[in-house]
Amino acid sequence: MCGLFSLCKCGVTSVAFEAVCPIPLSQYPTVTMGHGGGGRLTQMLIEQLIQPALTNPSLDRLHDGAQLEVGGARVAFSTDSYVISPLFFPGGDIGSLAVHGTVNDLAMCGAQPLALSVGMIIEEGLPMETLWRVVQSMRDAAGAVGVPIVTGDTKVVDRGKGDGIFLNTTGLGLIPPGIQIDPQRAEPGDIVIVSGPLANHGIAIMSVREGLEFETALESDSAPLHTLVADLLAVAGPAVHVLRDPTRGGVASALNEIAQAARVGILLEEKNLPLDEAVRGACEILGFDPLYVANEGKCLVIVAADYATLALEALRRHPLGAQAAMIGQVTSEHPGSVVMRSRIGGLRSVDMLSGEQLPRIC
Amino acid sequence: MCGLFSLCKCGVTSVAFEAVCPIPLSQYPTVTMGHGGGGRLTQMLIEQLIQPALTNPSLDRLHDGAQLEVGGARVAFSTDSYVISPLFFPGGDIGSLAVHGTVNDLAMCGAQPLALSVGMIIEEGLPMETLWRVVQSMRDAAGAVGVPIVTGDTKVVDRGKGDGIFLNTTGLGLIPPGIQIDPQRAEPGDIVIVSGPLANHGIAIMSVREGLEFETALESDSAPLHTLVADLLAVAGPAVHVLRDPTRGGVASALNEIAQAARVGILLEEKNLPLDEAVRGACEILGFDPLYVANEGKCLVIVAADYATLALEALRRHPLGAQAAMIGQVTSEHPGSVVMRSRIGGLRSVDMLSGEQLPRIC
Repeated sequence: MCGLFSLCKCGVTSVAFEAVCPIPLSQYPTVTMGHGGGGRLTQMLIEQLIQPALTNPSLDRLHDGAQLEVGGARVAFSTDSYVISPLFFPGGDIGSLAVHGTVNDLAMCGAQPLALSVGMIIEEGLPMETLWRVVQSMRDAAGAVGVPIVTGDTKVVDRGKGDGIFLNTTGLGLIPPGIQIDPQRAEPGDIVIVSGPLANHGIAIMSVREGLEFETALESDSAPLHTLVADLLAVAGPAVHVLRDPTRGGVASALNEIAQAARVGILLEEKNLPLDEAVRGACEILGFDPLYVANEGKCLVIVAADYATLALEALRRHPLGAQAAMIGQVTSEHPGSVVMRSRIGGLRSVDMLSGEQLPRIC
Repeated sequence: MCGLFSLCKCGVTSVAFEAVCPIPLSQYPTVTMGHGGGGRLTQMLIEQLIQPALTNPSLDRLHDGAQLEVGGARVAFSTDSYVISPLFFPGGDIGSLAVHGTVNDLAMCGAQPLALSVGMIIEEGLPMETLWRVVQSMRDAAGAVGVPIVTGDTKVVDRGKGDGIFLNTTGLGLIPPGIQIDPQRAEPGDIVIVSGPLANHGIAIMSVREGLEFETALESDSAPLHTLVADLLAVAGPAVHVLRDPTRGGVASALNEIAQAARVGILLEEKNLPLDEAVRGACEILGFDPLYVANEGKCLVIVAADYATLALEALRRHPLGAQAAMIGQVTSEHPGSVVMRSRIGGLRSVDMLSGEQLPRIC
């Protein structure tokens, strides 16, 4: 196989290698937790190392999923691995999360789910009962969505070489005619809507990990968004330019990626950000900015201004969008950046997450 | 989420749980390495625990991939996770293996590959250079096949919670009209062909792990079989009833699965099994039966007798099938079982692999 690495003299001399490896090895000799955090380091890994190597038009769009033509239909194709810790948490578990997460990635392409695959990497010694609970949770979540899990794979790794169970789900979905969702389609004047309050998933996970108890139970918002998206597209169809579920890295990182992809600015209004009181309190105690905390049942919608009210109303009629809110606007100013107007009127830059805020969040 | 587990009183009383969990917990309280070995325990886990829970017509066929109708086309959809150790081995590495393996699973549905996804689970501390080598290997393997990697996902887990890197690839492929590959289609009278010598992959991995050196270099046979299958289908088309790549669990386990699915017997001729001399020697030294050792660039073909010679000739004209051989026949006797006639004429039962022969082989 060595011949195939002729461009990269790995292990021969680090100088020759470093001349070719697109990540500076002196700065990042190894992969760190931050490279998986969904922020700046993840973006660097993907945009500098992975995407240029594997380049093709679908991958280069860096969307939540690929869009392909298959047999005359437009198909969305998306993959995600799930490494969340703990496996069971308030409001969900790794099984339901793996179904919801990939259904949502398809939905963010405007697609309705057709089929899922599941790959399980199980650590030797996992209680059989735990596997059974996870499989049942996948069954129930897929049943509720109405998407079959049509093919799968099971691997077992030695004790100490995994962490209970990791899942991968990959999904196929059908994109309706006339729908063209693409991060590059954000245009100055478009309105930014979020489908509900921020940060519930991340804060629920963190409270379990830290053993924190709050007066109000904090639950993950893990939920499948395909019917919410269908309702949205039914009223605003082609006026919906971008959809994105703000998971790892939160709303801040997702909007920064969109601003960079479309070369536009985004102006957020802090006073409009929906936030549950319990989550607000937990964020203050834990020192987290909810803009950077993961969500698993919310989507960002970037829609032409003329359709923004219709879109908001459609979201609010859906049980998962009752607290949807217009939170900002796409601008031609400060292209590539996100800026927020605070409650007292000042402007501050909202950067991507740098490093790792909450490891193993999904 | 607990409500969703109402059928399974996990953690409440183990008696109530055990009454429902389809795997006997007293016998298998935890998942073992054998459950990932590709033999009897893997089959039990899939057929007793996973498949009944997630049941649907595609999954229930227990084929290498699902076959779906999408937009008027017949599409194959297949997933595999790769947890091989070591990451780099003679004849390949985890990156090329992950491309070849899923391309082959599509090919075993009779499909030509359209697109792949990749999910990476990276352990904190993996040398960036190693990731770069793996990504380049995926690029080169996908480039050689001519299949784009259109979407991906990257996760990082804490040091000690993974093992360098695990990959998942999921593939989409197009099944040509008139082709109907299905393990249940094996019929008495059909001929069993293997596309080349057995056990090269498993023996190459084992020799690296054990630090063994042989006079002849032992290399994995990891290779993409989509053009071999295309050549085969061009001459034998609908007469090809079953295709299967004998990976984990080897030829013995793959043929047992087919015999069980189709409720037929299979009679192998030991003298016809192709085997490289170096592999034969290594198997003798290591005490392995090559029928149970993994292959990553071979396929089993079960074809109507009238087309067997045409099929064999087509395989032999292809560089990856030069040593293809007819190794047996499908029978109406001993349905569900595989029997082998030895060189001296005696018959012996060839059971599924029980337990784990070579862990982390793919």
